Amino acid sequence: MGRISYVNGRYLRHSQAMVSIEDRGYQFADGIYEVIAFYNRRFLDAGPHLDRLERSLRELSIPMPMGRRALEFVAQEILDRNDRNDGTLYFQITRGVARRDHLFPKNVKPSLVMTVGGMRSPKPAEFENGVAVIALPDQRWARRDIKSIGLLPNVLAKQRAAEAGAREAWLLGEDGMVLECAVSNNAIVNAKGEVITHPATHAILGGISRHVMLGLARGAGIKAIERPFSLAEAKAAKEAFITGTTSNVLPVVRIDGGAVGDGRPGPVTKLLQALYYDHIFKETGKRWN
Amino acid sequence: MGRISYVNGRYLRHSQAMVSIEDRGYQFADGIYEVIAFYNRRFLDAGPHLDRLERSLRELSIPMPMGRRALEFVAQEILDRNDRNDGTLYFQITRGVARRDHLFPKNVKPSLVMTVGGMRSPKPAEFENGVAVIALPDQRWARRDIKSIGLLPNVLAKQRAAEAGAREAWLLGEDGMVLECAVSNNAIVNAKGEVITHPATHAILGGISRHVMLGLARGAGIKAIERPFSLAEAKAAKEAFITGTTSNVLPVVRIDGGAVGDGRPGPVTKLLQALYYDHIFKETGKRWN
Repeated sequence: MGRISYVNGRYLRHSQAMVSIEDRGYQFADGIYEVIAFYNRRFLDAGPHLDRLERSLRELSIPMPMGRRALEFVAQEILDRNDRNDGTLYFQITRGVARRDHLFPKNVKPSLVMTVGGMRSPKPAEFENGVAVIALPDQRWARRDIKSIGLLPNVLAKQRAAEAGAREAWLLGEDGMVLECAVSNNAIVNAKGEVITHPATHAILGGISRHVMLGLARGAGIKAIERPFSLAEAKAAKEAFITGTTSNVLPVVRIDGGAVGDGRPGPVTKLLQALYYDHIFKETGKRWN
Repeated sequence: MGRISYVNGRYLRHSQAMVSIEDRGYQFADGIYEVIAFYNRRFLDAGPHLDRLERSLRELSIPMPMGRRALEFVAQEILDRNDRNDGTLYFQITRGVARRDHLFPKNVKPSLVMTVGGMRSPKPAEFENGVAVIALPDQRWARRDIKSIGLLPNVLAKQRAAEAGAREAWLLGEDGMVLECAVSNNAIVNAKGEVITHPATHAILGGISRHVMLGLARGAGIKAIERPFSLAEAKAAKEAFITGTTSNVLPVVRIDGGAVGDGRPGPVTKLLQALYYDHIFKETGKRWN
C-alpha cells in the first residue's frame, strides 16, 4: 500500500497530492499546522493537539474546515489508509484559495491537508547520551503561540544548528532570555532539582509535550517552575532537556560547546524521560524501551 | 485567451497551476517572491526587482532556479501568453519539494512559479485625495529585508487596517519608530520640505519604488533623508505618503484618525507623484493621467 494523503476531501496518492499555487498557504503562509505522533496506530495526546489546532485557527480568524468530530474521523481514516504502525500525522489548514490579495478573501473554504509520515525521532544514542545545542537570536514573529506555517526563521535556525554540529537551536529573546528551541520546547534543572521552563506566553509555542512533561514532573513531586531563564543560567544549570512530539524528553548535555552539569544526562531528566515513556505506553501500548 | 501561469517548466491554465503539498513554500514559507508592474506590456524597473529577487535567494541559500537571462525569457513568455496590457507579474521561488523536515533538503530543485494578474492599484480618488492609515505594532520576523513569502503578519496587519477603515497599517518597531507599511514603504515630509524615510536596514524591505522615489526627489533638488522617525513625528509632519509597486506615490492624509498637515495631499507629495508618473511614462510609454 503506497502513501496516501488527504487534500480537501480527497484521498490521493502522495505524489499526486497538490494544491493551487493560489492557496494562501503557499503565497502568504496564511495557515496553521499540527503534528500528532502515533504508536501502534494509536494517536498520542490527540485531544490537546486538536484543541491547539482549533485555538491557532481562532487566533487567525480561519474557520474550522469541518467540525471537530469530522476532523477526527478523517484523521483516523488517513491513518487507516497508510501502512505505518508508528509515525506522525501532519495536519495543515490554510485560509483557502483566492486571487492574491493580502486582505482576507470572502467566501472561501479553508484548505485541509493531512499526511502520514515517519517519526524522524532522535537516535537511541541521542535519547540515551543527550545532544548538543547552540544558542541563536530568535528571529521569529511576535505570535509564536500560534502554530503557523510561517516557519522560515525556524528552518534557518535549525539549519544553522545542524551546520554547527548541534541537534537544536535554543532561541534567545532580545533580553537574552532563552525562549524555546527552533522546533521544540526546552527546560533546565537547577541545583535544587527544580525544573524551569519559559511560561506559555505569546513568546513561545505552548508545546503539548511540554505540558505533559510539566504534569508528569508535578505528579512525581518535582517542583516545576514556569519562568524565563537566561542563557547564563542555562549554562550553569545542573541539567537541561528538550521536549517535543518526536523528541519526547531529550537530554541536552552541551550548550554552545560547554558541558551542562557533568556533561551527561542528569537524574531529573532521566526520570522525566522514563515517565514520558510510561505516558506513551499508557496512551498507546507502545513500549519505548 | 485564458489566464496562463508558469509552474516549474510548464505553461498551464491558471486553474490547473498546482504544486505539491510538500513544496517547502507550502509547509515552511521557505521561499521568496517579487511583484513587477507592467504597462503597455512593458515591465517597470524589472532590473532592480530581479536584482532584489537574486539577493533574497542568496540570503536564504536558495539557488536560482535558472539563470537570470532564462528567468527574463520566461517572464517575457508568460507576459506574451496572457492578455493584459497593464498588470503585475508575480514570481515565487521556493526551496523545492522534499519530505517534510526543517533542515535544508539535499538535491532538490527550487520551485518557480510565475503568474500575471491585475494591478490592484488604489482608486483614482485615493491617488488624488490621499488615504488613511493606522499605526500597529510590527509583528514580523527580524529579516524584513528578505522578500519572503512568510507574509502572515503582513496579512493580519493589512486586514486590521482595512477593518479600521484604513488603506494601510504603518508598522512600529519596539522603540516606537515607524518602519514601513504592511505592504509598502512610507515617508514623511517635514516643515523644511525634506523627505524622511526609514533607512534600508534589516528592519524594512528595501522597496524598489522607495528607491526610485528617493532618486526622483534628489534629482528634483528635494533633500531626502534616510533615518528612522517616530509616530509622533509622523503625526506632526507636513505631509506623508506611501510608495509601492502598485501604490506608486500615494498620499497619506490621516494617521490614526488625525489629519496630516491640512488633511490634503501636500506639494512635495504631489510633485513626487507627478515625477513617479513621468518615470512610468519614460519606462513604459504609459501615461498615468
